[in-house]
Amino acid sequence: MYCKISDKFKEECGVFGIYGTEEASVLTTLGLHSLQHRGQEGAGIVSFDGKTFHSVRKQGLVGDNFNNKNILSQLPGKTAIGHVRYSTTGESKPENLQPLFANLAIGGFACAHNGNLTNTYSTKKYLVESGSIFQTSSDTEIILQLVARSQKKKIIDKLIDALHQIKGAYSLVILTNKKLIGVKDPFGIRPLVLGDKNGSPVLASETCALDMIGAKYIRDIENGEIIVITENGIESIKPFKKIAERPCIFERIYFASPDSIIGNKTVYTYRKALGEQLAIENNIVADVVVPIPDSGVSAAIGFSQKSKIPFELGIIRSHYVGRTFIEPSQNIRQFGVKLKHSVNRSCIKNKKVILIDDSIVRGTTASKIVKMVYEAGAKEVHLGISCPPILHPDFYGIDTPSYNQLIASKSNLKEITKMVGAKSLFFLSLAGTYKAMGCKRRNSKRPQFTDHCFTGEYPIDVTEILKLNR
Amino acid sequence: MYCKISDKFKEECGVFGIYGTEEASVLTTLGLHSLQHRGQEGAGIVSFDGKTFHSVRKQGLVGDNFNNKNILSQLPGKTAIGHVRYSTTGESKPENLQPLFANLAIGGFACAHNGNLTNTYSTKKYLVESGSIFQTSSDTEIILQLVARSQKKKIIDKLIDALHQIKGAYSLVILTNKKLIGVKDPFGIRPLVLGDKNGSPVLASETCALDMIGAKYIRDIENGEIIVITENGIESIKPFKKIAERPCIFERIYFASPDSIIGNKTVYTYRKALGEQLAIENNIVADVVVPIPDSGVSAAIGFSQKSKIPFELGIIRSHYVGRTFIEPSQNIRQFGVKLKHSVNRSCIKNKKVILIDDSIVRGTTASKIVKMVYEAGAKEVHLGISCPPILHPDFYGIDTPSYNQLIASKSNLKEITKMVGAKSLFFLSLAGTYKAMGCKRRNSKRPQFTDHCFTGEYPIDVTEILKLNR
Amino acid sequence: MYCKISDKFKEECGVFGIYGTEEASVLTTLGLHSLQHRGQEGAGIVSFDGKTFHSVRKQGLVGDNFNNKNILSQLPGKTAIGHVRYSTTGESKPENLQPLFANLAIGGFACAHNGNLTNTYSTKKYLVESGSIFQTSSDTEIILQLVARSQKKKIIDKLIDALHQIKGAYSLVILTNKKLIGVKDPFGIRPLVLGDKNGSPVLASETCALDMIGAKYIRDIENGEIIVITENGIESIKPFKKIAERPCIFERIYFASPDSIIGNKTVYTYRKALGEQLAIENNIVADVVVPIPDSGVSAAIGFSQKSKIPFELGIIRSHYVGRTFIEPSQNIRQFGVKLKHSVNRSCIKNKKVILIDDSIVRGTTASKIVKMVYEAGAKEVHLGISCPPILHPDFYGIDTPSYNQLIASKSNLKEITKMVGAKSLFFLSLAGTYKAMGCKRRNSKRPQFTDHCFTGEYPIDVTEILKLNR
Amino acid sequence: MYCKISDKFKEECGVFGIYGTEEASVLTTLGLHSLQHRGQEGAGIVSFDGKTFHSVRKQGLVGDNFNNKNILSQLPGKTAIGHVRYSTTGESKPENLQPLFANLAIGGFACAHNGNLTNTYSTKKYLVESGSIFQTSSDTEIILQLVARSQKKKIIDKLIDALHQIKGAYSLVILTNKKLIGVKDPFGIRPLVLGDKNGSPVLASETCALDMIGAKYIRDIENGEIIVITENGIESIKPFKKIAERPCIFERIYFASPDSIIGNKTVYTYRKALGEQLAIENNIVADVVVPIPDSGVSAAIGFSQKSKIPFELGIIRSHYVGRTFIEPSQNIRQFGVKLKHSVNRSCIKNKKVILIDDSIVRGTTASKIVKMVYEAGAKEVHLGISCPPILHPDFYGIDTPSYNQLIASKSNLKEITKMVGAKSLFFLSLAGTYKAMGCKRRNSKRPQFTDHCFTGEYPIDVTEILKLNR
Repeated sequence: MYCKISDKFKEECGVFGIYGTEEASVLTTLGLHSLQHRGQEGAGIVSFDGKTFHSVRKQGLVGDNFNNKNILSQLPGKTAIGHVRYSTTGESKPENLQPLFANLAIGGFACAHNGNLTNTYSTKKYLVESGSIFQTSSDTEIILQLVARSQKKKIIDKLIDALHQIKGAYSLVILTNKKLIGVKDPFGIRPLVLGDKNGSPVLASETCALDMIGAKYIRDIENGEIIVITENGIESIKPFKKIAERPCIFERIYFASPDSIIGNKTVYTYRKALGEQLAIENNIVADVVVPIPDSGVSAAIGFSQKSKIPFELGIIRSHYVGRTFIEPSQNIRQFGVKLKHSVNRSCIKNKKVILIDDSIVRGTTASKIVKMVYEAGAKEVHLGISCPPILHPDFYGIDTPSYNQLIASKSNLKEITKMVGAKSLFFLSLAGTYKAMGCKRRNSKRPQFTDHCFTGEYPIDVTEILKLNR
Repeated sequence: MYCKISDKFKEECGVFGIYGTEEASVLTTLGLHSLQHRGQEGAGIVSFDGKTFHSVRKQGLVGDNFNNKNILSQLPGKTAIGHVRYSTTGESKPENLQPLFANLAIGGFACAHNGNLTNTYSTKKYLVESGSIFQTSSDTEIILQLVARSQKKKIIDKLIDALHQIKGAYSLVILTNKKLIGVKDPFGIRPLVLGDKNGSPVLASETCALDMIGAKYIRDIENGEIIVITENGIESIKPFKKIAERPCIFERIYFASPDSIIGNKTVYTYRKALGEQLAIENNIVADVVVPIPDSGVSAAIGFSQKSKIPFELGIIRSHYVGRTFIEPSQNIRQFGVKLKHSVNRSCIKNKKVILIDDSIVRGTTASKIVKMVYEAGAKEVHLGISCPPILHPDFYGIDTPSYNQLIASKSNLKEITKMVGAKSLFFLSLAGTYKAMGCKRRNSKRPQFTDHCFTGEYPIDVTEILKLNR
Repeated sequence: MYCKISDKFKEECGVFGIYGTEEASVLTTLGLHSLQHRGQEGAGIVSFDGKTFHSVRKQGLVGDNFNNKNILSQLPGKTAIGHVRYSTTGESKPENLQPLFANLAIGGFACAHNGNLTNTYSTKKYLVESGSIFQTSSDTEIILQLVARSQKKKIIDKLIDALHQIKGAYSLVILTNKKLIGVKDPFGIRPLVLGDKNGSPVLASETCALDMIGAKYIRDIENGEIIVITENGIESIKPFKKIAERPCIFERIYFASPDSIIGNKTVYTYRKALGEQLAIENNIVADVVVPIPDSGVSAAIGFSQKSKIPFELGIIRSHYVGRTFIEPSQNIRQFGVKLKHSVNRSCIKNKKVILIDDSIVRGTTASKIVKMVYEAGAKEVHLGISCPPILHPDFYGIDTPSYNQLIASKSNLKEITKMVGAKSLFFLSLAGTYKAMGCKRRNSKRPQFTDHCFTGEYPIDVTEILKLNR
Repeated sequence: MYCKISDKFKEECGVFGIYGTEEASVLTTLGLHSLQHRGQEGAGIVSFDGKTFHSVRKQGLVGDNFNNKNILSQLPGKTAIGHVRYSTTGESKPENLQPLFANLAIGGFACAHNGNLTNTYSTKKYLVESGSIFQTSSDTEIILQLVARSQKKKIIDKLIDALHQIKGAYSLVILTNKKLIGVKDPFGIRPLVLGDKNGSPVLASETCALDMIGAKYIRDIENGEIIVITENGIESIKPFKKIAERPCIFERIYFASPDSIIGNKTVYTYRKALGEQLAIENNIVADVVVPIPDSGVSAAIGFSQKSKIPFELGIIRSHYVGRTFIEPSQNIRQFGVKLKHSVNRSCIKNKKVILIDDSIVRGTTASKIVKMVYEAGAKEVHLGISCPPILHPDFYGIDTPSYNQLIASKSNLKEITKMVGAKSLFFLSLAGTYKAMGCKRRNSKRPQFTDHCFTGEYPIDVTEILKLNR
């Protein structure tokens, strides 16, 4: 299935929760739909009707699975949490769909997780040896098992007990028979925001989910914060030593939805700024700026506005890309990229073209598109990337290839340029990236962002994972 | 299901055929995928393996249904035709999926049709009364029944016999045990092109299907032409009196794929020109030009380049729109439009915004989007439409609403402006539309295009249809 | 799939119709369920609600497909006909499921057929050459096409017109917008009875369908009779020259349900009599009489009662035979018969066993069971068959193998005995068979039954079929 | 769905396991098919290929789900265990299908269970409170959790540790990465036998599963025995104090397959003896003995042979009973029983009829059939039941109704006779039942069978269950 290997980092996960409204599962469905860009593999919702927890988890898109009254009527109750998933750890199996649920001695406990734990192996080993039975290969189940094992009396204390035993990146949304709980890890690597829908508190990975359901944005959950929503209101607990937050820079570069607001600006603004910065750093003479759609569009608009080179839709993206087209034989393998992209000849023929994309991971798509553009008659094809070269994998919830599949990790600029077939290839500098984020400069001692994919500086220890992957 | 009623003309159909290649059904699948914008309701392929005809017809997208070896192995043979469908006449039933097939006395006959017949009622009545049994409610079956009834000896003569009895718009691709046949109606209302894939002749609705499979464009099928492809080569037959062609202007305005070439230019070029023309005709002071995606993007780029007002992605279109989200209750009806579009606040807040779309049919989407943009903080919202008001329904293969649902047919400019809620609303003039098409002016005696939706001038008699619809 | 080849004649079809009751489609479903032994491949119902015809046709069992309100609510109306099918002619395709339906100029026409036409080839050839398009490969469609072509004015006259052009065995149930019609062919080969359910006339293949819905048996439809049910009552039409009826003897020997009444007796009575007659003709010393279940049970009871040899359930039949167990490898091929039958060791060990079955077609099952019984420790195994050897295929609606697959057609008694592995094998004589049917003797000039499978005397010409099969 | 409530005890479960053969999962499928009468709700197989455990569990019949190479190829390996299920405890949910599987610290552990635990509530409570997360509502999971929790080193010791903490009836088949294990509870309530298929040891609930795959019967697993099969051979462990076995008498009366051998006789033999004993105890003048099929057939043959009253198939059982026919309206509710049984009029009209069945639970079916037989014209209808009245529920793995649904528990003989509508009703005595089992008399101090349903004498404490059900 040749469409399946994308030349992007695979997305990670999105979480959502709402407390105290008649249409909890419907609003959760809508919220998950707006977070679908964070995970297309499957979705799940757990609701609580005052007596019983209800769970529906399905592989496939939210809009394909949670679209009828039948399913929504299986999810009654005034409180619900939901999850969209792209498998980061745990294989692509139905039982790994979230939210996970456990019947604890003190009642039901449902949990949706965005992120990735880094001490999974050792913690799971300990738990299994002392008698826990794991039903999934998801690292999220470790949190459930730790909560189940805690000998503390209250659910929040059990949760804090568990959090002190895990390491990694996590934004959690948890549902119990009394509470809706949000958690962000000490570094605040993955996003989580608090909103309000006519008095009902909402938790969501991004503000676009608040917009979708017409909820007001209240504030971001802080790094290391536990937020507990009950009928008595909202309580904030901070069980960790306070440190400066260090959110993942990739949320702004390409994960988050362009209309989501982070740090008071829409993500689109950051991406346009990355494109502008790229134009400032690279002064190339050309006839047209053409985005590789849809990922490169925002940066290309910024590049065009700054460079004054006209923006043209020289590459068209199909709305109808099936993820499952087969490859019937060798001699039509070439059609792979065409299923997704086609060239708009008139913008390209006899033109000097600057292609803009937001990143390069393996380089496979880029090289196909450069070839396609040359075949359509371009005089020159330059490729501009609106972030620095990706040299290191992520282990905090983004499904990245290993070192030897990252083109920038194994090849130098000249080699990559040759491989993608462009006349020139240029990346944005790390300094330019921080500028586009609105920082004067990168604080090298305590960087404002988790930027390990560019720098190799991992804020949370990843030794256990590296050892296992070896 | 509130996403289902689109504020666009529904698309019509696409046809494809290829002769004499080992991978006929695979190439047909790819061709149909690239024509998917012409019909998303269902798709079908008929192949011929030298002895037997094979048929697979499925509701749903090409990429979802024709993606595995199982199905393609059900379609062996070196010749195949295919069809993507949006129901124009005939209800949305599996048996109405095309290509239709009949076992005639002289062998199998498969037919795929893009267009619409205008004398369906009287012809079907005559056929049934004399003993024909219809299995579908598709007007295409009339062609089959007429061919079956013809007392001519040869298949081409039977076909011509049938064509002389039908009226309307039709581009046909036909497969027999010896021939691949293409037909365009006397006015050439719907497109049909001839290509070549390494020596194998190809017929397709648009050139984008040729690009997809790496085939060369040879020429357009002429209006009133029958093209017959056999192992002896390609023969052209012209059974009708020659008249000037009069293709449907909507193919350029919004049906055809932006990368398809019509009249030596990509469709994108025409659409940008429509936007430029709109900017020339309307001199409005504003901060940003924002397309209603995806239909308004090309015209908005043209408008921005001509007006020098910056182009911004102020509205984001979801990639994950299910067609089947339910409407769970009154108080969330507002979410309808948000499932498909969301606002990019930072481009819009405190700005004077010009929204651009390629057409208005019912006006429902436009009014929702104008409202959404105002709610996001726009100072002013102006709406520019890159074609004239649509005053009349189509009866030649486009699924248009009836007169009383066409907003421009029942309201004047002031009323429409009020209804959509914009500060101002402006349409492109008919003269400007023809200019953007590259014509000096509209030839009012013999217009270069079928433009009845703007003018009410129907080149083929539609009395029978109007009488039935009354 | 090794369970699929049965060592029985395959069943044929069953038809049902009811006029003028609120629960027409529900009662039709129940009637079809009780006729399921006549066809397990698929079932269909057409109902008429006073305005519109509704049709549901499904592959699989009645009870699996027509069991929910959803489907029955798709079949509104006070009149309905139904059909259970085992393919006799026409491949096993969904479109061949009946009732077939056509929109004729004078209205809808639905037809369900039990039987087989013998002049299919020539009639279809003529129809196609003059312009009819066939959508199925079922011979039933010929009746529809002939009715559609008839230039008579009234539907009954059109039907009679069509019947005069067909040859073969047929019991038809037909539904129009005014009438429920039953037809039996001139020889009356296939059964059809008239019943009454609280004033609503009922047509059914067998009386067991009347019992199921609590309807009273009125009378058999006569050979060559058309019965027309309207709101004005029941009318009988006899368009053919009167001849003596000649029903298929196999209905009594093994097709009909044991509780159905034919000629004033239950079918079970005839079968017991066949077993008694077999005991009279064959005086064998043995310890137990064991039926091959379920087909041999009735005759074995008769044999046991007459011979005074105890009846024992020495072979158990599984309730859970899937039709689709695969054959995973050579060394478990032996399990085929065990999936369906198992031996009850205690009845068999060290016993002289008489196995009883109602017929032998290919002899494959018999030989497996004889082997199984010997392996379970039987001292002697004798096999008694309660009808004469089957020497000729049927062409009147029973799916029989061709001559060279009929074991009795290609081998003599000694060879068959050796092949099945029994110590002795004995058939009932033709004379004994007629005696069990209650006839003094077979009338050799004008036999009371169609018994061509034993005698080769075909009452309706089968030359056309034999020529095609050659 | 009115066919679903049967007037029988619902079946329980069947287990199967095989060690060391290339076609382990195929043979397990065949074995489960032959045990299908013990559970039709669903089936599952776990295989081990030397490295990995593979699991497929499906709702529905074995033959419908495990019939194709696709599924069997998902179950590679030389060792496999399987389970057919009728829910006894645990709701009818897919996750409750067995075998259950857990990844323990020392490797995989799969378990299939026939029986029912009686201390489920207290044991589960303890486990959850100390941190176990249950994924199913099946009592079988308690065994897994206890094994997981055991601090013993070896798997057998962990298992014994767990067995000492549970109470109830259980026959288990367990698969680990080295062993196939069979376990029977201390009383030996549920059956479990050991067989041999060409050197591969086999475990199965009944000998009919050995017959199906052509395996030799070796011996019964003893009460309280653990049998451990490894590549080094078969080891027997007896961790409990030895007591006399006390198998469930209902296995012989109606659960086990008639061809299965228990105590050196086929089950059919016991059932015929029950019928004979019934004839000895009840001397009724009648014309025919008619079984209620299929449950009453064996006893009716015994009754007929002993009483010399002819055996006739007066009631026919449909092969095509869907479990899911709906009840569309009040006035056709009567059809319920007819879907399953129909009357064979000729055996019944003007006859004195003795109906024979193997038991009465609620009495609903019996009363419908008596009515049906009278309506068919019987002069007298007597009903003989080949076991004593059922006065008490089972809690050892049979799904029985509660006290107030057991007709014999709430009514006396006269009342029941009136309710079922028979002229007379007679049960077999407890003494006669033991005689038919081959016992001289019931040992009242230490009964040879678990016969609590007749006597209320529960060998294993059921207080906890009774308290919960109250």
